[in-house]
Amino acid sequence: MQERRAATMGISEETFFFDPRSQGTLQQQIQEMVAQGILSGRFRVGEKLPSSRKLAAHLGVSRITVTLAYTELMADAYIFTRGKSGYFVSPDAPQSPKFLASHVPAGNGVDWSRAMGRRFSNVPRPDKPADWRTYHAPFIYGQADNTLFDHQNWRNCALRALGQREFDSLATDAFQQDDPILVEYIARHSLPRRGIIARPEEIIVTLGAQNALWIAAQILLTQRRTATVENPSYYGLREVLTPTRCKEIRVDIDADGLPPDAIPTETDVLFTTPSHQCPSTVTMPLARRQALMARAAKDDFLIVEDDYEYEMSFLKAATPALKSMDHDGRVIYIGSFSKSLFPGLRLGYMVGSEEFIREARELRSAMLRHPPGHMQRTTAYFLSLGHYDALLRRQGRAFHRRRNVMTAAIEEYGLRIAGSGSFGGSSLWMRAPDGTDTDALAHDLRAHGVLIEPGGVYFDDGLKPTNYYRLAYSSVSEDRIPAGIARIATALKNAPKA
Amino acid sequence: MQERRAATMGISEETFFFDPRSQGTLQQQIQEMVAQGILSGRFRVGEKLPSSRKLAAHLGVSRITVTLAYTELMADAYIFTRGKSGYFVSPDAPQSPKFLASHVPAGNGVDWSRAMGRRFSNVPRPDKPADWRTYHAPFIYGQADNTLFDHQNWRNCALRALGQREFDSLATDAFQQDDPILVEYIARHSLPRRGIIARPEEIIVTLGAQNALWIAAQILLTQRRTATVENPSYYGLREVLTPTRCKEIRVDIDADGLPPDAIPTETDVLFTTPSHQCPSTVTMPLARRQALMARAAKDDFLIVEDDYEYEMSFLKAATPALKSMDHDGRVIYIGSFSKSLFPGLRLGYMVGSEEFIREARELRSAMLRHPPGHMQRTTAYFLSLGHYDALLRRQGRAFHRRRNVMTAAIEEYGLRIAGSGSFGGSSLWMRAPDGTDTDALAHDLRAHGVLIEPGGVYFDDGLKPTNYYRLAYSSVSEDRIPAGIARIATALKNAPKA
Repeated sequence: MQERRAATMGISEETFFFDPRSQGTLQQQIQEMVAQGILSGRFRVGEKLPSSRKLAAHLGVSRITVTLAYTELMADAYIFTRGKSGYFVSPDAPQSPKFLASHVPAGNGVDWSRAMGRRFSNVPRPDKPADWRTYHAPFIYGQADNTLFDHQNWRNCALRALGQREFDSLATDAFQQDDPILVEYIARHSLPRRGIIARPEEIIVTLGAQNALWIAAQILLTQRRTATVENPSYYGLREVLTPTRCKEIRVDIDADGLPPDAIPTETDVLFTTPSHQCPSTVTMPLARRQALMARAAKDDFLIVEDDYEYEMSFLKAATPALKSMDHDGRVIYIGSFSKSLFPGLRLGYMVGSEEFIREARELRSAMLRHPPGHMQRTTAYFLSLGHYDALLRRQGRAFHRRRNVMTAAIEEYGLRIAGSGSFGGSSLWMRAPDGTDTDALAHDLRAHGVLIEPGGVYFDDGLKPTNYYRLAYSSVSEDRIPAGIARIATALKNAPKA
Repeated sequence: MQERRAATMGISEETFFFDPRSQGTLQQQIQEMVAQGILSGRFRVGEKLPSSRKLAAHLGVSRITVTLAYTELMADAYIFTRGKSGYFVSPDAPQSPKFLASHVPAGNGVDWSRAMGRRFSNVPRPDKPADWRTYHAPFIYGQADNTLFDHQNWRNCALRALGQREFDSLATDAFQQDDPILVEYIARHSLPRRGIIARPEEIIVTLGAQNALWIAAQILLTQRRTATVENPSYYGLREVLTPTRCKEIRVDIDADGLPPDAIPTETDVLFTTPSHQCPSTVTMPLARRQALMARAAKDDFLIVEDDYEYEMSFLKAATPALKSMDHDGRVIYIGSFSKSLFPGLRLGYMVGSEEFIREARELRSAMLRHPPGHMQRTTAYFLSLGHYDALLRRQGRAFHRRRNVMTAAIEEYGLRIAGSGSFGGSSLWMRAPDGTDTDALAHDLRAHGVLIEPGGVYFDDGLKPTNYYRLAYSSVSEDRIPAGIARIATALKNAPKA
């Protein structure tokens, strides 16, 4: 008999049930259950079946019934026995090529187009291949660079948060409370760097910035309210606004970001990225911020400030957040650790008036209770032990070098930058010649190992320019940048124009 | 000079900003910023201030300006110097008693009662003290018992999921995909134990069962739809249903759970807990399940089955889930790891037709992207290495012993059980004499070190009996049960009747 890899776990008798509708004998039903399990790929070659004693006890039949069923299954080569060690799925058993491939999906009894009262699909998102790491020049945005991340210290912090005493407190559910160590760090270290002073009651920890945007929109918007957003703006914002059925107005940005004069007076909530406009990366000057705050007070609208990427200010210090100029609680501030640590972490935070944050906690609780305690505590340690600041410095130096290589190559190959953050950031906003279809360009480049982000998803559906794209340098190594840019230049030359 | 505890981190110069509205000189402004930081509790005794060189560079002022400000602050005893090692917050500095207590909260410029378009608060939840572990007899529900949990192996699995290669894949964001190892375990081991066969496309991982309920309600319900729920039922369900503005109908359960005949024909979605009714713990018999499925087909409604606690079937094997009888994709099944592992984990899953699960992924993505990769992978290892099954067996044995002690003590002291799961579970549903106010009873008992859960939150607002309560044995040790039950009996004797 040939050698077989031992299966990690046996097949539990608890996975066997008689079907009350079945017509066959008990023995036949047992045979069918085993054969179906094997044919569907659920039971795998070498896996151990339940003993006849256990299966008989579980199903409430006599042991001989199970033994007879197993004997028939052996005769049909579905299973074999290794003497006293029991019954196993045979390598010679008939097999389906794919997991559960033979299972006919259910669902034909329900008219899902009617059954689903609300739809959340069909919001365009950038098409990011899961295997982006295997590409030669992945100019993709928002992913962690494993060559820069401090994996060792992250692991140490996670370990510390896994200690017995810590575990006891983190295992408990906490509908309302966030990790006090994390909140304290945010209040004492993160926010003051943005010029913001906030009490713990004014801070909520969220499942990333996306979750913060979702919560803010759900609380502040209804179908009788108007949300104003920048054009172009973060595609994730549309995923958040559409389900509220609010009226959505887009205001074109200029070289200084959102022009306050262009904000319609009917605005109830303005979503803006003043420190580092998404996706163009431009920074709103102080005078314009003051004008914006004055407009908000005059027309009595709220502002949701998404302050993503302020941590990546390696060229010069980031300007203070809009929230730092907020003296009547009008600004709701959103920060994130997903960009500066890693996106799979799913941790961000939101700062606002106590009344608003109290409501946000209620909504978060109804939606998901709270972000997992272990992730919060691990992050709290990584931050408070200073590893985070060290990471940001290391990241800043690397991004600075990459950016220099990028801009040099871009100049050399004659590409056009449409926006570049004056204080740093992790990407450049690019403009291809008018009429270029950057969706087609991205598709073309992918075949050559280069990933770029077409810009269409950031624009209003109606007036969507096709010739913008984003080039991030957060996940591409310095040495691969020039060839990648050269490849883009070549592809642009060959691109058909509309 | 007295000894001081070294502060973990210095105060970063990046937390200093000039206020554009300020009238004072630059030196005065620096003094104010430091004094305000100390008075507000943000800067703490012994913490190191930025060097005059760094602060001057950051603020764009001459170094002498900073030095003069620091000298003044020393004269006022806010800070002191330790020669070349720099400036520190003085222990003699004026101090506020509490963190940021002196900070006047913002928010008076916004009328929040108008600004918030939707409210999520005021849903009653059980009042669970955060320090429940310190009580003598905490008969509280749904918390992990640290004397039973396999902390060592959980830690090992978490460590394995923190390895470099794992980390790279878990750090990436994954809008749509769940951890394939976790999904495979659920498909091959968890669901078959409930009689359910599902493909990965029919499974979504959620932030606990609450998140699954939220997603299902958001997709299936609108203000033109009707949700039918059991009375009494899980309080978290109301948090999920109210925001959809659907019509909500409650159907009284009997000793066999929900009676299918009583389900109104206008029902669009039924929320039910057939295997272990929440909170009464009764199990719906097979014949009634068949009748329920027939009703659902006839009146064309969907069923959301919350299969919480099936893992705790230590008395006899759990009956197969309702979903196992679903041949036209009408049942949406919800499972959770929060009860059997620990609630702070925040991991559950939902099984349904591929069309529905696809929409659920879209909504989850808009709300929060995905559950953190590390938590998914750690759980996947803990499950697939067999630690989970071992934990369930250990837990089952302990719960069995505790339940025996509970029922003996309940009989001895003449308390009345209103519902007890025939296959096990972690709690008993209790009925005090008519007219008893179990809210007052719980309050009274708390002062004597005993925690019980008043039952009011599980009932309809209108017809709320006041005399039910829940006693869980999942977080109380065997030896403390008799005295706890005795104390409840005493309190009940003394309780005033309505």
